[in-house]
Amino acid sequence: MAYFANVTPIQYEGARSTNPLSFKYYNPEEKIGGKTMEEHLRFSVAYWHTFTFKGTDPFGSDNMPRPWDRYDSMDAAKARVEAAFELFEKLNVPYFTFHDVDVAPEGGNLRETYQNLDVIVAMLKDYMKTSKTKLLWNTANLFSHPRFVHGAATACNADVFAYSAAKVKKGLEIAKELGAENYVFWGGREGYETLLNTDMKLELDNLARFMEMAANYAKEIGFTGQLLIEPKPKEPTKHQYDTDVATAFAFLQKYQLADRFKFNIEANHATLAGHTFEHELRFARINGMLGSVDANQGDVLLGWDTDEFPTDLYTTVLAMYEILSNGGLGAGGLNFDAKVRRSSFELEDLFHAHIAGMDSFAIGLKVAHKLLEDQALEQVIAKRYESYRHGIGLDIVEGRANFQLLEQHALQLGEIRNQSGKQESLKALINQYLLDVNTRA
Amino acid sequence: MAYFANVTPIQYEGARSTNPLSFKYYNPEEKIGGKTMEEHLRFSVAYWHTFTFKGTDPFGSDNMPRPWDRYDSMDAAKARVEAAFELFEKLNVPYFTFHDVDVAPEGGNLRETYQNLDVIVAMLKDYMKTSKTKLLWNTANLFSHPRFVHGAATACNADVFAYSAAKVKKGLEIAKELGAENYVFWGGREGYETLLNTDMKLELDNLARFMEMAANYAKEIGFTGQLLIEPKPKEPTKHQYDTDVATAFAFLQKYQLADRFKFNIEANHATLAGHTFEHELRFARINGMLGSVDANQGDVLLGWDTDEFPTDLYTTVLAMYEILSNGGLGAGGLNFDAKVRRSSFELEDLFHAHIAGMDSFAIGLKVAHKLLEDQALEQVIAKRYESYRHGIGLDIVEGRANFQLLEQHALQLGEIRNQSGKQESLKALINQYLLDVNTRA
Amino acid sequence: MAYFANVTPIQYEGARSTNPLSFKYYNPEEKIGGKTMEEHLRFSVAYWHTFTFKGTDPFGSDNMPRPWDRYDSMDAAKARVEAAFELFEKLNVPYFTFHDVDVAPEGGNLRETYQNLDVIVAMLKDYMKTSKTKLLWNTANLFSHPRFVHGAATACNADVFAYSAAKVKKGLEIAKELGAENYVFWGGREGYETLLNTDMKLELDNLARFMEMAANYAKEIGFTGQLLIEPKPKEPTKHQYDTDVATAFAFLQKYQLADRFKFNIEANHATLAGHTFEHELRFARINGMLGSVDANQGDVLLGWDTDEFPTDLYTTVLAMYEILSNGGLGAGGLNFDAKVRRSSFELEDLFHAHIAGMDSFAIGLKVAHKLLEDQALEQVIAKRYESYRHGIGLDIVEGRANFQLLEQHALQLGEIRNQSGKQESLKALINQYLLDVNTRA
Amino acid sequence: MAYFANVTPIQYEGARSTNPLSFKYYNPEEKIGGKTMEEHLRFSVAYWHTFTFKGTDPFGSDNMPRPWDRYDSMDAAKARVEAAFELFEKLNVPYFTFHDVDVAPEGGNLRETYQNLDVIVAMLKDYMKTSKTKLLWNTANLFSHPRFVHGAATACNADVFAYSAAKVKKGLEIAKELGAENYVFWGGREGYETLLNTDMKLELDNLARFMEMAANYAKEIGFTGQLLIEPKPKEPTKHQYDTDVATAFAFLQKYQLADRFKFNIEANHATLAGHTFEHELRFARINGMLGSVDANQGDVLLGWDTDEFPTDLYTTVLAMYEILSNGGLGAGGLNFDAKVRRSSFELEDLFHAHIAGMDSFAIGLKVAHKLLEDQALEQVIAKRYESYRHGIGLDIVEGRANFQLLEQHALQLGEIRNQSGKQESLKALINQYLLDVNTRA
Repeated sequence: MAYFANVTPIQYEGARSTNPLSFKYYNPEEKIGGKTMEEHLRFSVAYWHTFTFKGTDPFGSDNMPRPWDRYDSMDAAKARVEAAFELFEKLNVPYFTFHDVDVAPEGGNLRETYQNLDVIVAMLKDYMKTSKTKLLWNTANLFSHPRFVHGAATACNADVFAYSAAKVKKGLEIAKELGAENYVFWGGREGYETLLNTDMKLELDNLARFMEMAANYAKEIGFTGQLLIEPKPKEPTKHQYDTDVATAFAFLQKYQLADRFKFNIEANHATLAGHTFEHELRFARINGMLGSVDANQGDVLLGWDTDEFPTDLYTTVLAMYEILSNGGLGAGGLNFDAKVRRSSFELEDLFHAHIAGMDSFAIGLKVAHKLLEDQALEQVIAKRYESYRHGIGLDIVEGRANFQLLEQHALQLGEIRNQSGKQESLKALINQYLLDVNTRA
Repeated sequence: MAYFANVTPIQYEGARSTNPLSFKYYNPEEKIGGKTMEEHLRFSVAYWHTFTFKGTDPFGSDNMPRPWDRYDSMDAAKARVEAAFELFEKLNVPYFTFHDVDVAPEGGNLRETYQNLDVIVAMLKDYMKTSKTKLLWNTANLFSHPRFVHGAATACNADVFAYSAAKVKKGLEIAKELGAENYVFWGGREGYETLLNTDMKLELDNLARFMEMAANYAKEIGFTGQLLIEPKPKEPTKHQYDTDVATAFAFLQKYQLADRFKFNIEANHATLAGHTFEHELRFARINGMLGSVDANQGDVLLGWDTDEFPTDLYTTVLAMYEILSNGGLGAGGLNFDAKVRRSSFELEDLFHAHIAGMDSFAIGLKVAHKLLEDQALEQVIAKRYESYRHGIGLDIVEGRANFQLLEQHALQLGEIRNQSGKQESLKALINQYLLDVNTRA
Repeated sequence: MAYFANVTPIQYEGARSTNPLSFKYYNPEEKIGGKTMEEHLRFSVAYWHTFTFKGTDPFGSDNMPRPWDRYDSMDAAKARVEAAFELFEKLNVPYFTFHDVDVAPEGGNLRETYQNLDVIVAMLKDYMKTSKTKLLWNTANLFSHPRFVHGAATACNADVFAYSAAKVKKGLEIAKELGAENYVFWGGREGYETLLNTDMKLELDNLARFMEMAANYAKEIGFTGQLLIEPKPKEPTKHQYDTDVATAFAFLQKYQLADRFKFNIEANHATLAGHTFEHELRFARINGMLGSVDANQGDVLLGWDTDEFPTDLYTTVLAMYEILSNGGLGAGGLNFDAKVRRSSFELEDLFHAHIAGMDSFAIGLKVAHKLLEDQALEQVIAKRYESYRHGIGLDIVEGRANFQLLEQHALQLGEIRNQSGKQESLKALINQYLLDVNTRA
Repeated sequence: MAYFANVTPIQYEGARSTNPLSFKYYNPEEKIGGKTMEEHLRFSVAYWHTFTFKGTDPFGSDNMPRPWDRYDSMDAAKARVEAAFELFEKLNVPYFTFHDVDVAPEGGNLRETYQNLDVIVAMLKDYMKTSKTKLLWNTANLFSHPRFVHGAATACNADVFAYSAAKVKKGLEIAKELGAENYVFWGGREGYETLLNTDMKLELDNLARFMEMAANYAKEIGFTGQLLIEPKPKEPTKHQYDTDVATAFAFLQKYQLADRFKFNIEANHATLAGHTFEHELRFARINGMLGSVDANQGDVLLGWDTDEFPTDLYTTVLAMYEILSNGGLGAGGLNFDAKVRRSSFELEDLFHAHIAGMDSFAIGLKVAHKLLEDQALEQVIAKRYESYRHGIGLDIVEGRANFQLLEQHALQLGEIRNQSGKQESLKALINQYLLDVNTRA
């Protein structure tokens, strides 16, 4: 337990602290509207970006030699568990997440892979006994190995479909074993490179079959966690089937699966799809489909998944506004599916980055809570739509209108008067709430 | 009937013609696989871009003074009808499309607007008696007038909802009167500028109410044409609710409207949404939702709707491949929702542009037909997915598999072998088919 | 003088004010590091977006009937001047900017256009005698009228080149007459729609000839203001020649014009070119070419010039950081080349929007000033590059190194050690400085 | 010499061949306008994508086990040379290109790296004695190793600058040794991740110092090949300094280096910068800076460098149009900086992909040659700009005009008449020329 020995225990020192290793806004025990910050935010560390990622990019090799990588194979996997729980404790995070291949290496065949997983899962379970950190979700990596080159559940090869099913079966068993609160499906290569060689209908039908079998198996073994689909529009494949929340919702509805899954929504995936993060959260929320969140951010001037730690406060405020409006995240959490920049290759950067992200969401929570407490936007909205609370508007909303009735109404209207949408004022209002975060009582 | 007197009758002169006003590939009577080109392609001229558009852009004023614009108001509207049927005849197109405001000016109030429409609709009907050109679809413009600043069916103002309903009601009546084969809904400003002032749930619920009332009214009056939704992701609003085919399909399913509407798919809207045109067509096709097509193209390096005439042959080939695979367009057609460039402001450019587009789709038809006749891609695809036609693959497809069974299969697999996707070869194959269009017997 | 009678005089009420028509951060007389806020920020109102823009967009007609538009032609132009100075006074802005066509309508020919301009320029001059508001810059609109369909100085028609020269000649004379501190060249349609019909070399040579003649004429008449080129990558044309600062700098260098022009840099044009605003400012600054700023913002998820009022505080902080590092804007200013949203069509929105923008830049100024005062980033940078201040690094910088010497040095190096770039910490630091703006003594 | 034993010798079978391993358009000995196709096209195979790339992507591990990778380190490097010349011969390509690290592994220190390179360079030289395939260019990889995490010539660490200089010094010596016709500089990580920690001025000054030293050293050792800079806007860093041709031209001019370098222009880098490939070629051409070409293509709906083999015939036609208009590529060539898709992992795909690319450029050559032979576009352009060949236009072009003279001309003009730009017709014309490629005598 000495991987991060040089990192002094993290302190909660408040907004004016100049200590780069202290939290300035996040304080797990601080109450915001009846719940603690920890309960609201449910932060989670992602195993892959923090313990497995070594800094490679398409033009560069590993540049982050981590102390736990000095071991080989299963020994490295075990060292990584030690390092992980040390970091969880130092950061005081309530959750973590992992893919199967993050925690245990593949064996020579599937049976050996299972055995490796069993060893590490037992070790994780053991550590979890004395740790506050729980498993937010786990998942199966169905995209890195060459066998998944054409996808997993949507592969053109039935053996790959079967192999993928086995990996998810094991994943669900691990989820149950470790008390995961969710299980996530990210369609790594579920998509296509070119329509020229693709039977899209068969692939989507197969994806639905796979998802249904997964839900059935989860039920069968008594795994009661939430099942979550994570949308992404592109990368690694040219077109990913779970493009965005709306597309995945169309899929779930078509195959009668909408009541068995919710969504794990990632900020950078939203922007790659041409949406704001808050749009995706809103769309999921009003359809009762908001499950959990991958808390990161992209660079909107770049066209790939940069998975940056979230520091844009506009995004954290508006995300927390949606989450609070949703009544919280339920079984979900804010998982830092975020990696330190390749140029932030030092061990300490892992802490700086998580602290930056946690503080940013703590600020988002505080500002969003105040906005809601004051009903700052709700009042504007109530006034804007008030014509639907009486007269012809109420008739519309309550299903009493038809085209004939509406035409009669329209024919006796003079010039219709609208009100300004006041977008500029509302943006200034958000700035005012944001900058007041330190001075508010 | 002298607006285009200088335009000599269009000839079908074939591929080697150097006459810029002749068709080189399109020949309405040429048979391709049992149907004529005209029956396959069902070309349609869009009234707005051809007879109403005057060349404005956000930085430039009208620069296309058309001879029919020398008249005022209703006289101009009547002159435009004359010009339209003259052009239809010269181009020999079987269809046209219009918005209400394209054909008749708004009056001082809704009743006067109706009266103006009635006059022009009667005139259109009269012209159609002696013309081969029929109405592919009409629609209501619910976005240009200031009253629609916040949307129509999704406006925050119930009066606007009612007014919009009246306009669509009239539109459906006109569709019936003129024998339109479809009626189109493009959600011009059905979307939002900022979530800060938007009740997205109410707006989407209202949109569903509106669409249901429209479908009910169409049925009530006996309009048997197809009802079509036209997706677009952004512009004019920051976010348009009918973002893409998948999003609109999610909407229709949620509100139990999927069996009452199909889609009118536009190429440039596809690319603005980050999709290829063929992707949107494929997605609609495999879901039984492909209704009609707005045949244009965008500039993928520009971020707005350029509505160019379609000349990219890759796009026309792959679009026609989807359309032929769909068994044709049914009641739909290829509507040139395309405008001449602002710098192509001469009257003759209207002909050049339509000929360029019609020839491009004619080439697309020939190449796609040959690809399908040879089963050039189908053979590749059949081989690629053949593991789903026996053994475990067939079990999956026929619903006999579950995770336990699949795991047993996976456990006894050795290293899984995949086959190359052969994308480069397939692209070269498409080039070969394309370049053979002139030499093929 | 009663166009904005309902707008109460604007107050400087400070950060906690809930009055939407008060400034919360901007206070013209507040001293920041030896200069007043007004001197630092040099705010300017853009005539076109504020007094001429009526809310049109490519899908919508005028929806902002302004009281000064109830008059015709020259009477409207005069009313607009009255309205303008009333607004300038209410907002207490030191500068304004205009295109020729914003202030005076075109006449039946060029001579009449000159006469119209002369009348209004005299009126502007008269108003300026008793107003604090000065002319930051003026410019000629060489893109809206049909004659400019193929460009102005890069038109394929020499008459258009000549006409454009006459308009700029008049513009420079007006600039001198009104004491403008700058004159701006935005290449509205200087670019191309397609290379297929374009002689790019001739067009760029002609553009250089035009710019040189303009600079010569300015010198000849004794106009001593700064000449500024405003880059933009696309829109209205597919490709605009002054794509971004670097491209325009290449142009100026090639034609030996770099010492006669600087740049007017617009935030939204930067993002359309794929750059951050601060990147463009930095590039201009280190090349001694930062002249003035068009202070607006785009929507990075949209592909066109939205010209929004600037409210993103990250952008204003980093922009002011570059401006302060430049020693200020010199003769330049922060010109609100920004329009109220089409849905913000009420007269009062003009005030809300300007106040939002001015407050946002005031916050940017305060935060950037504090960052520089503390040398918060400079210390990091000095440490990062310190190897260039001694030894081999100093040899490189001072020109004593060559490849042989460097190879000798490299051959005796062991493994090279780098330091983390600490991006995450630095972003958190910016957040901390931002949120401290209200609590800082 | 048996790595590709299964690949039958490539044949030149012509357009109707159905043999996927034959060339259908490329025939090295076919004469086009006085030069053979081989002389025109100067095709080159890129070592890295063809012999070193193993299929990894950010979400997937190696999936292309190549037979030459069964050896280790230097043995693999030697096997790769054998494989390379076998493939060069089978494809009958006249050129190849490499980075230092593609051909020889790094040693434990720089001296060992040199030794490894010496061994392989000697072997390459030996193979080249009996092969027709020559070295188009080589380059140094200054971006993959961790030491280059912050850049090379623009690194914040002077040791890295020195190390980079040593690598380029060696590269230039190898270029001379192997008779390379060019040497390429691609600024792999010459750029920044965030301005917050970047001294952009120092970095650009250092880059200029580096380039000058390189040019000096090349001259000193008598390397007479062309020195080429390869622009790219982003990836791997957020901002690459050599953004596009115009930006790199601004850099070269500023530092008086424009006569010592030309550009190596890559199609995919052009589209990432928001330009068409032909735009970048045109801009370089008219500035006398077109050196060589990286012949690939991107996916314009994806935001990263996909480096696809070029199969888009519009792009190859317009690229060859620029190249022919440039009088050919001189010492440059068409280098396939293109990789097979990850899903095209079979050995044979390397041949399919190169054949697809070579055929596509052969078609481009034929079509562009015919366009130029017919002066199809030149006639249009000559007519469009003819006003610059007499009268006021000629005065402008010949430097006799000034603003006073132009104003006099403008004042006596009536309404200016422009001509249509005829974009739609011209696009149809390109289609006609393209589809005629098989039927043309």
